[in-house]
Amino acid sequence: MTHPFFTPELRLMLEEEDADGVRAFCETLHPALVAEALAEDFSVEEVWRVLEHTHIRDQAAIFEYFPISWQVTMVEGGGKPHMARLIEAMSHDDRVALLRRLTPRVADGLLRLVDVADRRDIAELFRYAENTVGSIMTTEYAWVPTGLTIGEAIDRLRHHAPDNETIYYVYVLQESTRRLEGVVSLRDLILSQRLVSINEVMDRDLVTLNVTDDREVAAQAIARYDFLAMPVIDDSNRLVGIVTHDDVIDIVVQEATEDLQRQGAVGPITENYLEAGFLDVWWKRTFWLSMLFIAEMLTFSATAYYEESIERIMILKYFITLCIATGGNSGTQAATLVTRAMALGQISVGHWFRVLRHELLMGIAMGLVLGIIALVRCQLVPTEMLRVEGGEDLTHIQIGWVIGQAVACICLVGTLIGAMLPMVFKKLGVDPALASSPFVATFVDVTGIVLYFSIASVYL
Amino acid sequence: MTHPFFTPELRLMLEEEDADGVRAFCETLHPALVAEALAEDFSVEEVWRVLEHTHIRDQAAIFEYFPISWQVTMVEGGGKPHMARLIEAMSHDDRVALLRRLTPRVADGLLRLVDVADRRDIAELFRYAENTVGSIMTTEYAWVPTGLTIGEAIDRLRHHAPDNETIYYVYVLQESTRRLEGVVSLRDLILSQRLVSINEVMDRDLVTLNVTDDREVAAQAIARYDFLAMPVIDDSNRLVGIVTHDDVIDIVVQEATEDLQRQGAVGPITENYLEAGFLDVWWKRTFWLSMLFIAEMLTFSATAYYEESIERIMILKYFITLCIATGGNSGTQAATLVTRAMALGQISVGHWFRVLRHELLMGIAMGLVLGIIALVRCQLVPTEMLRVEGGEDLTHIQIGWVIGQAVACICLVGTLIGAMLPMVFKKLGVDPALASSPFVATFVDVTGIVLYFSIASVYL
Repeated sequence: MTHPFFTPELRLMLEEEDADGVRAFCETLHPALVAEALAEDFSVEEVWRVLEHTHIRDQAAIFEYFPISWQVTMVEGGGKPHMARLIEAMSHDDRVALLRRLTPRVADGLLRLVDVADRRDIAELFRYAENTVGSIMTTEYAWVPTGLTIGEAIDRLRHHAPDNETIYYVYVLQESTRRLEGVVSLRDLILSQRLVSINEVMDRDLVTLNVTDDREVAAQAIARYDFLAMPVIDDSNRLVGIVTHDDVIDIVVQEATEDLQRQGAVGPITENYLEAGFLDVWWKRTFWLSMLFIAEMLTFSATAYYEESIERIMILKYFITLCIATGGNSGTQAATLVTRAMALGQISVGHWFRVLRHELLMGIAMGLVLGIIALVRCQLVPTEMLRVEGGEDLTHIQIGWVIGQAVACICLVGTLIGAMLPMVFKKLGVDPALASSPFVATFVDVTGIVLYFSIASVYL
Repeated sequence: MTHPFFTPELRLMLEEEDADGVRAFCETLHPALVAEALAEDFSVEEVWRVLEHTHIRDQAAIFEYFPISWQVTMVEGGGKPHMARLIEAMSHDDRVALLRRLTPRVADGLLRLVDVADRRDIAELFRYAENTVGSIMTTEYAWVPTGLTIGEAIDRLRHHAPDNETIYYVYVLQESTRRLEGVVSLRDLILSQRLVSINEVMDRDLVTLNVTDDREVAAQAIARYDFLAMPVIDDSNRLVGIVTHDDVIDIVVQEATEDLQRQGAVGPITENYLEAGFLDVWWKRTFWLSMLFIAEMLTFSATAYYEESIERIMILKYFITLCIATGGNSGTQAATLVTRAMALGQISVGHWFRVLRHELLMGIAMGLVLGIIALVRCQLVPTEMLRVEGGEDLTHIQIGWVIGQAVACICLVGTLIGAMLPMVFKKLGVDPALASSPFVATFVDVTGIVLYFSIASVYL
C-alpha cells in the first residue's frame, strides 16, 4: 500500500494559491487519505481553505473521514452557512453522529440553516437512542416499487444514482405503505433480462433488523451472513433505513477496543491514543485505578483480620500474594472467555448451567495442576521458615498439603466466580465486559484471602 | 431478526425422505442459517444426507458457513469423490483454509481427485504463509482487458456471472501481462453510457495490497477506506487476487478475540466456547495459569528477601498486596492502551519517545491521586498496628508518608513499564498483545515489592 507524505506539496499549493492543484489533490486521492493528510498537519483555517476549492460532495466525503473530535473543532472554526451546505451533502448516519457531538446550541444554530427535507431526516434519525440500530443506519437507500421490470428498475437507479455504499442492494417496496417486499442485488439486476419482472427475481426471504435493536445485533448479523448491507424496518414492517458493511467494521473495532480497555482497567477511550485530551484520559484512567485501589484496600482489612494466624505461623504471610494472584488470574481468565463468547453470540444467559458445569470440571482440572506445583514448591522452603510461635514446627509435607489445597480451591472458586459474574451482570443489565476487568479480580482476591486462611486454620 | 428453530421440521423431512422439502429448505434460507441449524443438532451422516439433495453450489455455500472444526469432521465422515466435487465448488479462500486444517495425508488424497485447474489454483494459494494477505485472498475476481467499452464489459460480466462477493469491483488488466491498470465499480458500470470506453471511467489511483503483507494490513486498509474489496498484487504489479469485506470482518473479530484472550491470561481459543475440545482448552488455560503461578512465586522470594523489615515493622506486611496490585493494575492499563493503539495503527514503535513522555506525565498525575488516597487511608490504621519490634512506634503521619510515596512511585513505574513493554516486544518481533497480559503484570508485581521495601527502608 502506497502512503506518501503529501504535506509539503499541499502546503506549497496553498501558499501559491494554486486552486487547481488543490482541487486535483482532493478529487484524485481517496478521501480517507486526504482527510488523514489534512487532519495531521494543518490548522482548522487551512483545512477550510483547502476544502473550499472542491465540490461540496467531495468536501463532505473528506469531512466524513476526519476523526469526530476534529470534525467538531472544524464546525466551531467554520462559517455556519458553509457548514450547513456541508451537512446537507454528508451521509445521513455520519451527520447525525456529528450533530450528536455538538453542543445543543451550536447544533440548533446549524440546523436552522439546513434545508427542510434534510432537517426532517436528521430529526427522524435523532430520535433513536445511541447504540441502537436506528442510530447507525442511513436513510439513503436504493428502492423501487413492486411490479417494475428489471429494465425499468435499472433506469430508475441510473436516474437517482445512489452512492457507492448504498447501491448494491435495491429494496422492493409497496409504494403506498413503504412495506418491504423483497430485495434484489445489483448483481442480479445486471445478470437478469431487462423484460423480466422484478417480482420474479427478488429475494423475499429477507433477514432484517429492527430499528430499536442493539447495534451489536447488526454487527453480528452482518458478520454472520456476509451481507454488504441489511434493511432496517420498524414495527409495521416499513423500511426506514439500511446499515452498511463499513459501519459494521467500525462498530466491531470500537466494541473490541472498549472491551479490551475495560478489561485493561480503563474507561473507554475511543479517540486516537496520541490525540485524546490529557485531562479526559487522566480522569478515565485515574478513576479506574482509584476505584481498584480502594477496593483492593479490602485485602488490607481481610489480612488484618487473620492477624493472629499470621503472627503465629510465619510462613503463611509469604504465600498470601501467590494465593491472591492465583484467584485473580483464574477468575479473569474464565470471565474473559465467557464474556467474549457472549459478545460473539456463542452463548447466552440461558446457557448458565452448561457453563457452570463446564467451568466446574475445568476449575478442578486446572486447580489440580496448580496445587501440585505449589506442593512441590513448598518442599524447597528453608526449614527456618517453618517455625510456629509457641508450637511445634511444621513439616514440609504439612505446609505443602495446606498451600497446595488452598491454591487448588482458590483456582476453582476463582474460575467459577469469573465464569458466572458476566452472566449475572448481563442478567442485571450491566455490561458483562466489566466482569473481566480487574475490578472483579479484586473481588476474587479478597475471596482468595478468606479461603486461604480458612483452609490453613483447619490444618494448622 | 427472525431465528426460528428448524430442527424438528428438518428431522421429519429426513425421516420421510422428503427430498423436495429438504432441497427447498436448503435453497430458500440463507446458507448461514442452514449451516447453523445443521451443525448444532445433526450427526455427520445426517448432514451429508441433507446436503446431497441440493445442487453442489448450494452445498458449497452451506458448507463454507460451518465452523472449520465441523468442516474437518465432515470431510473425515464423507465420501472422497463427493468431497472433491464440493471443494471444486467452494470459494477459493475457504477451501484453502479447510485444506490447511486437514492432515497432509487426507488433504493429498482429496486433492488427487480434484480438477486440474482447481488443484493448480489451490497449490498457488497454499504457497502463502498463514496470516499473510495471500492466505486470505481469493483468486476469483471479475476482470476485463483494457480498451473495452462499458457495454462490452457488462456483456462479459453477464457471461461469467461472478459471485456476489466478487462482482462489485471489476478490475481492468493488461491482457498479456495481467498488470493491474485500474478498477471500475459495478455502480459506475451501470451509471455510464454503454459506448464509453472503460479506460475513461476507470479509477487509476488504486489502493492495493501486496500478497506478502500481513493480513492485519488488509483489515486496517479496508476498515479505513470502506472498500468492499481490495486488489492484491505481486511484486511485478500483476493482479493475483482480491480480499473481500466479509473476510475482513472475520479477521477483525478473530484478532480482537485473540487479543482479549491473551490479555485475559489464556492462549488463543478461536473455536466456539461450548464446542471447543475440553483437553485442548484445559491445556491452553492451565499452561498460562501455571506460567503465571510460577512467575508469581518470585513474589515469595522477593517478600522473603525483606523478611527482616517485615518482622520488625509489623504494619508493612499488610500493605504488600495493595502495593503490588497498584503496580499490576497501572501496568496493565498502560499496556492495554498502547497495545490497542498500535493494533489500530495509531502509533508505531517510532513514536516511543512521545509515548514515554506522555506516560511519564500521566503516571505522575495518576500516582499523585493514588498516593493521596493511601496517605488518607493510613490515618485510619489502628494505633496498635504501628508497633515496631525493638524501636519507637511509628506515627500515622510517618506511615502515611511512606505508603503514599511508595504507591505513587509504583504507579509511575508500573505505567512506564506497561507503556514501554509492548513497544519493546514489537521491536523484538514478539506479539505486543502479550505485554498487556497478566504475565507482564506479574513482572510489575515483583518490581512493586522491591520499590515498596526500598522506600520503606529509607524512612523507617
